[in-house]
Amino acid sequence: MQNEAFPSFAIHYKKLLETKLTQFIHDLNAPAVMKEAMDYSLQAGGKRIRPLLMFATIAACNKDPNIGVYPAAALEMVHTYSLIHDDLPSMDNDDLRRGKPTNHKVFGEAFAVLAGDALLTYSFQLIADMPHEHADEKTKLELIRQLAKSAGAEGMVGGQTADIQGEGKQLTIQELEYTHIHKTGKLLQFSVLAGAILANASEEQKEKLTKFAHHLGLAFQIRDDILDVEGNEATIGKPLGSDSDKNKSTYPLLLSLDGAKQALAKHRDEACKALQNTGLNTVLLEEITNLIATRDH
Amino acid sequence: MQNEAFPSFAIHYKKLLETKLTQFIHDLNAPAVMKEAMDYSLQAGGKRIRPLLMFATIAACNKDPNIGVYPAAALEMVHTYSLIHDDLPSMDNDDLRRGKPTNHKVFGEAFAVLAGDALLTYSFQLIADMPHEHADEKTKLELIRQLAKSAGAEGMVGGQTADIQGEGKQLTIQELEYTHIHKTGKLLQFSVLAGAILANASEEQKEKLTKFAHHLGLAFQIRDDILDVEGNEATIGKPLGSDSDKNKSTYPLLLSLDGAKQALAKHRDEACKALQNTGLNTVLLEEITNLIATRDH
Repeated sequence: MQNEAFPSFAIHYKKLLETKLTQFIHDLNAPAVMKEAMDYSLQAGGKRIRPLLMFATIAACNKDPNIGVYPAAALEMVHTYSLIHDDLPSMDNDDLRRGKPTNHKVFGEAFAVLAGDALLTYSFQLIADMPHEHADEKTKLELIRQLAKSAGAEGMVGGQTADIQGEGKQLTIQELEYTHIHKTGKLLQFSVLAGAILANASEEQKEKLTKFAHHLGLAFQIRDDILDVEGNEATIGKPLGSDSDKNKSTYPLLLSLDGAKQALAKHRDEACKALQNTGLNTVLLEEITNLIATRDH
Repeated sequence: MQNEAFPSFAIHYKKLLETKLTQFIHDLNAPAVMKEAMDYSLQAGGKRIRPLLMFATIAACNKDPNIGVYPAAALEMVHTYSLIHDDLPSMDNDDLRRGKPTNHKVFGEAFAVLAGDALLTYSFQLIADMPHEHADEKTKLELIRQLAKSAGAEGMVGGQTADIQGEGKQLTIQELEYTHIHKTGKLLQFSVLAGAILANASEEQKEKLTKFAHHLGLAFQIRDDILDVEGNEATIGKPLGSDSDKNKSTYPLLLSLDGAKQALAKHRDEACKALQNTGLNTVLLEEITNLIATRDH
């Protein structure tokens, strides 16, 4: 039973999210090519792990996950914008993402930059536009504040900056963790925190959920690095070994492959431990943790 | 007397704005190079016309302009992000901005993309973080909603998209106006609307101020095009004729130089007319209009 709760939850809320994403882009009164460029990357697939984490956190707090649909869409837009900009020739210069041509390969660099900008901007509008029965004004502002902190210079952009600064250097494990905690961790943390904010969780619950998300984020990134070494190119949708090709430090490089696997197991355990004695219904969150720690793409 | 009100107002609030911009960047807990890249373009000078329009609109409504300092900083950050991205090699490929090397010339393309992203993101955080005595929650959310609409796909990014699509084509005057109303007009309009929102102006006042800002925005852009033809390279800080070099349609090209000057006069008059019978103290806004219509840089 426990192992079967998440898949059907995921199918249901992934579909809800994707329907809403399509509708939100459709609603825009904007040049057709810009809507196409935004939609192209939003619909390029992906696991929708961040929105699902948010929905699952709301469910863990025994509230209706549907109240999260606007911020879930916002979150996926912020994540998608970061991928579009990250793939640009001046950044990671990737031609493929999830097995499909990257945004700038299809629409050109100028529109790719702008599509990222437009997605980021729209994400804040969507939170401000949440129906009042989903969130009151104070809650919306707290979501906007935390999303901006997680995505901006103190969060994801800061991590991206550190990542670029670290290219061609052998980092310490502390430097590598700074990068990952910011580049991927902060937005994953926001996914969980946003669910807790929406569900009116207590301060103590928020604190424990934030700790959970911290370890989950590191587990996610370590698994990513391991997959880059031993994954299957067709399954993960980008060339294998592409990180080490770019002279980027990775967990397997710094800790050895076995050391990386041990670190992964440790963070998975810490994540699950943080969920104990929270008074929350944590079945889904534990399942997600195990999926992230063992995923093959 | 009437002609002397704005200069001292501008000096005072420009200084306040610039002090706050420095402080807001200083407050960020982020990699030093990212803070430098954000600060570099924010401090690169400029007329600060958008923040000043916001402060002047608040004053026109007989409220204390100081309540606008957070959104004024946000507005300048959004404007600055748009310039950084606009100058990128994949966009306008400009090496100089206000007589100084553009952001990507100093920090490289990757950091320039990220500095723009970080400024855009921070702008929403600053509005959410406004002191409660400056704005209540409902007002903050309305500012965020309107800023996102003005800056995103339905506003500035939409205009930028149309601008790129129009390169190398002879546009109709309607197509040219679509571009300008969105690319520069929407954010100028937000500057005025935000002041009105902050000052609790009536719906009728907001409508008339929005009309004022519409004509002001077009006057601003036509003046820009005229300066590109007959201005002084040292004063405007970028190579003369750079728009026509890029095969962009301009007002002088479509209407002749005299026709463009007539259109400028018409929009200036319409702007001033919109301010009549509003019950507002419009001295500063009229002065700004005349300055914009006659500026030499």
